[in-house]
Amino acid sequence: MLNAHDRKRRLRDPQRTRQRLLQAAFREVYRSGFQGAGLDTILAATGVTKGALYYHFGSKEVLGYAIVEEIVAALPRDKWLRPLQEGKDPIDALIDIVQATSVRPKDVQGGCPLVNLAQEMSPLDEQFRKRLERIFNGWQEGIATALRRGQSQGTVRRDLVPEETASFLIAMYEGYVLLAKNAQDPKVWNVGIRNIVGWLRTLREPGHPRNGRRRSG
Amino acid sequence: MLNAHDRKRRLRDPQRTRQRLLQAAFREVYRSGFQGAGLDTILAATGVTKGALYYHFGSKEVLGYAIVEEIVAALPRDKWLRPLQEGKDPIDALIDIVQATSVRPKDVQGGCPLVNLAQEMSPLDEQFRKRLERIFNGWQEGIATALRRGQSQGTVRRDLVPEETASFLIAMYEGYVLLAKNAQDPKVWNVGIRNIVGWLRTLREPGHPRNGRRRSG
Repeated sequence: MLNAHDRKRRLRDPQRTRQRLLQAAFREVYRSGFQGAGLDTILAATGVTKGALYYHFGSKEVLGYAIVEEIVAALPRDKWLRPLQEGKDPIDALIDIVQATSVRPKDVQGGCPLVNLAQEMSPLDEQFRKRLERIFNGWQEGIATALRRGQSQGTVRRDLVPEETASFLIAMYEGYVLLAKNAQDPKVWNVGIRNIVGWLRTLREPGHPRNGRRRSG
Repeated sequence: MLNAHDRKRRLRDPQRTRQRLLQAAFREVYRSGFQGAGLDTILAATGVTKGALYYHFGSKEVLGYAIVEEIVAALPRDKWLRPLQEGKDPIDALIDIVQATSVRPKDVQGGCPLVNLAQEMSPLDEQFRKRLERIFNGWQEGIATALRRGQSQGTVRRDLVPEETASFLIAMYEGYVLLAKNAQDPKVWNVGIRNIVGWLRTLREPGHPRNGRRRSG
């Protein structure tokens, strides 16, 4: 528990206030979409005044861009790019990442924050679109870099084009996010994980010890 | 050109009025989303009165459900299921369908009407979600049936699970719709088509004459 003094100090710390607003706004946008997100809901969740919100973000759009740059951009970085940089075999790392997909009903029903915003805002607002495109490109480039490393180490097939294979993986992954979200059914994701993992195994260099070439029936 | 008499007759034909409202509403929803769609825009595009709109559809929601059932549901049926039923080799038919994807900037930027509505409305409205799920299921079942036929004819690998392979194809296809829409770049679809077609070729029964097993570099 914070005492009254600490609580006041915390509320007065501008960087903390900004962070709390950003996190509450992210949750509200995830729940209701950007256009449907209520500033009043965000203020109520944080106990911050409207004046303070406008002091930090100037407009709802600026708040939205900050969500994209500071929260959404971190998601593929944390879940995909950091594990890929740890030096493990890239196909093993990708299989681990895909298998770690949350199939909790809340996450399945909410979908992917990046896709939700891209679907809603990219056709309407070029500022959103460009920022979201940068995230997709960084995600793709991170996977492509790992695949390229695997090619030079002899664990990944040399005949595949790393950038294209990376975009293919992102497409199938986001496609399953969408199917599972619409079905509101985590089982769709279980099928998705099995299929994507099966496909990832076909990216191994034939003859590599990890590539058993077994197929499940 | 219609003369004044014909025009009046056409306006008075209730089924034509209903159809014109439905088509105009579909276009407006495709452009602005369901929540953003303006009834006034639909009325202005059709020259129909608000009273006539409510006579035919009762509410904006009922109009939305009719769009899903009468227009959106026909899209995978026309583009995917009908060609698959023509008795051709199913892998050849699927390759033709994927290669026929429109890469016109207008279509790339607009995305897929089914996905757009699923993303926007499924979390908000169970009536939308169920209707859209029926479409996804019918699409999946149509592809699965064709794959099953291919398995019994010896052209499709027997070790794959038709329903799962069908959902995988839909996921990767819709994933590329999303990536291309966000990039606003038809080139993303060219890569997508190449990758999906490459994957479709791996579904052929090994040893089948069509399966050259060549991979592009």
